[in-house]
Amino acid sequence: MFYTRKCGEIEESDFGSEQTLCGWLQDTRNLGGIAFLQLRDITGVLQLTLLKKKLGDENFKSWANINRESIILVRGIVKGNKEAPGGVEMLPDNIELMNEAETPLPLGVIDKIDSEIETRLNARYLDLRKTKIAANFQIRAAISGAVHKHLRRENFLEVQTPKIIASATEGGTSLFEMKYFDKTAYLAQSPQLYKQMLMSGGLERVYEVGPAFRAEEHNTPRHLNEFISIDIEMSFANDDVVMGVMERLVATAARAVSKETKVLKTLGIEPIEVELPLPRITYDEAVEMAQGKVEWGEDLSMEATRAIAKQMNGFYFITKWPLSLKPFYIQPDDDPKYSKGFDFMYNEIEMTSGGQRVHDVNLLRERLKEQGLDPEGFNHYLDPFRYGMPPHAGWGLGLDRLTMIFAGAKNVRECVLFPRDRTRMTP
Amino acid sequence: MFYTRKCGEIEESDFGSEQTLCGWLQDTRNLGGIAFLQLRDITGVLQLTLLKKKLGDENFKSWANINRESIILVRGIVKGNKEAPGGVEMLPDNIELMNEAETPLPLGVIDKIDSEIETRLNARYLDLRKTKIAANFQIRAAISGAVHKHLRRENFLEVQTPKIIASATEGGTSLFEMKYFDKTAYLAQSPQLYKQMLMSGGLERVYEVGPAFRAEEHNTPRHLNEFISIDIEMSFANDDVVMGVMERLVATAARAVSKETKVLKTLGIEPIEVELPLPRITYDEAVEMAQGKVEWGEDLSMEATRAIAKQMNGFYFITKWPLSLKPFYIQPDDDPKYSKGFDFMYNEIEMTSGGQRVHDVNLLRERLKEQGLDPEGFNHYLDPFRYGMPPHAGWGLGLDRLTMIFAGAKNVRECVLFPRDRTRMTP
Repeated sequence: MFYTRKCGEIEESDFGSEQTLCGWLQDTRNLGGIAFLQLRDITGVLQLTLLKKKLGDENFKSWANINRESIILVRGIVKGNKEAPGGVEMLPDNIELMNEAETPLPLGVIDKIDSEIETRLNARYLDLRKTKIAANFQIRAAISGAVHKHLRRENFLEVQTPKIIASATEGGTSLFEMKYFDKTAYLAQSPQLYKQMLMSGGLERVYEVGPAFRAEEHNTPRHLNEFISIDIEMSFANDDVVMGVMERLVATAARAVSKETKVLKTLGIEPIEVELPLPRITYDEAVEMAQGKVEWGEDLSMEATRAIAKQMNGFYFITKWPLSLKPFYIQPDDDPKYSKGFDFMYNEIEMTSGGQRVHDVNLLRERLKEQGLDPEGFNHYLDPFRYGMPPHAGWGLGLDRLTMIFAGAKNVRECVLFPRDRTRMTP
Repeated sequence: MFYTRKCGEIEESDFGSEQTLCGWLQDTRNLGGIAFLQLRDITGVLQLTLLKKKLGDENFKSWANINRESIILVRGIVKGNKEAPGGVEMLPDNIELMNEAETPLPLGVIDKIDSEIETRLNARYLDLRKTKIAANFQIRAAISGAVHKHLRRENFLEVQTPKIIASATEGGTSLFEMKYFDKTAYLAQSPQLYKQMLMSGGLERVYEVGPAFRAEEHNTPRHLNEFISIDIEMSFANDDVVMGVMERLVATAARAVSKETKVLKTLGIEPIEVELPLPRITYDEAVEMAQGKVEWGEDLSMEATRAIAKQMNGFYFITKWPLSLKPFYIQPDDDPKYSKGFDFMYNEIEMTSGGQRVHDVNLLRERLKEQGLDPEGFNHYLDPFRYGMPPHAGWGLGLDRLTMIFAGAKNVRECVLFPRDRTRMTP
């Protein structure tokens, strides 16, 4: 390692000692006989105080004129200074220029002028140096860490299913096509069918955190064509049981985020509190709450969910959806007008859908026919149901969108390092 | 939940109590007045003892004749029985047939006859029901859990980089091509360039566990066209530092696997012990140890690594490779005939390669030219190096291959749920 301490991790007990620090030279203020430099690393910003008298004319001049965002290594005594950012400063004996930044920068790092998101994404390597932007990805990592920890604690086995698949699953309109040697293949839009195969395979509780791909031509602040999906599937469970897994997971994530006090302070937001159990309303109740914004049997429009959100606060479930609104693999309720499918909501935003699955192969064939699909074309899918498929339920939840909620971001692109949308596939 | 206990989790304190169990009916042995059924779930196998006298002719007959691998729910008193598998049996009062398996099965689950791996992969949903096969995936999940835990403990930030990319990175020969709306895109063969962009972005320590895709036409027990890569990148670090991260990670994984005593017993293997620090030999020493099987400046052939493995045991590093054998982004050593690139080995198997990267943009341009590549074509890649790129190092390690080692498997397909190779893209 090149350094002895990180900028944000110098403690009072270090005061008076010589340390070596590395990072980006964020800013320089030269007042003639004295210059203040800001050194930044991932943990914070530290002030370097240069005294011309101490360093000599030449060193003072060259060090106070290093281009912003260059990589430097500094060695010197650290001490307390109430006026310095973080309350600490270093009086360097030496500054080594490790890698000089060209000038001008294509994007300012500390300048107050806000850039367009397109400009920022083009120079993401500079955009990420802003502490407020990096903070979104620290929130994201806190959530994904909580996901792994929580689902393992609930005895879910982490799995990885293939992203290259041979055929369309839920209709092929939103699949990306690719060449697989001399054949045609597609990118998986969801691990749905694989998760179900694993239920037949007896793994009982599985989860996957991995990419999913949808070739949909939307252009909204909430949709991307490549996203990270958190998926679970669970045997001998119904919709109710997996809603329980979901709410406990989200509560664990909320706790993990609430511990990121420094990051939350950077973002200037309060942590979201999740109190269990989360409210559950039925689709029928939701339609009523939407007060004429939706007819029974229609999907809930943005207008309808906005009306509902006025009466709900934070996370909640909408249960017992009409069977006709759910995919063929969702289990009908006792009254077959309804299903054992649910949506998971945050205010007016749909976070997930899930439900109990059809596990009876004959019912599955019927359901396929009802939705105008030919069961013969689904033999690969149906086989695992013929030889011992338990009742099972599950859901899939977008990590990007969950991060957006917890980070208080308005555009999912703020929480995805290198987003992919209709018009963007670089960098 | 449908059940009160799992088959393998009944304890002495449960003896005499009524329990409900769910699972797969693995086997039936009908002796006339008494029948022994084997109920299997993910935790183990439990004996169900049916007494004709107790249950009546009709129940006895129908329950003792349920097709193997059907899903059943049983309720009854559990008790100790030293002759039963696991030492426990249940005398069921009721058996509910939840989902009947068709007969004959396309693949036996408990039959002693070994099937070809191709047959098994075609019916993976049945293959996975074998406890020895499922065990490989429990080892795999133990390793991936250890990876997340360890890298987070060492302050690595979990990230996800895009799998859809606009252009070839290290030469385009092994890329899968795809349609991205009206453009052509490729599947990422490695997160290499993105990890490096994040170093410029100041995230300092990142890791990713995600799929990687290589369109190589190999056909070996160790290669697949889609695999899970564990990647790290670390700023202000050299090859030596990231080799340290690697060896500590592998030691953590080894400890996690060694705790899976039940799974190891199922597989009939001893846990691999990893003692730190791991041995490090230089490329020059390796060539000498290969005793004429390789000329200096050539890559190590299988024959050469076999000869070396006779003198090395378990995991070790081969350091200081000739620069000419490493990609353009690997940093030259002080003597520029050599590089700061290393390989991580397990006996004769190459597990990873990694190293310190070139962080100076001018050197990078030179290195590209030396390898016959035009720096102009790499502008997207080079930009992050122009405005403050710290020295950095990293590696990428295949989860599939690591699992193969720890599970003692001879073919990587044993440790991948739904492998993708030259000839297989289903199920």
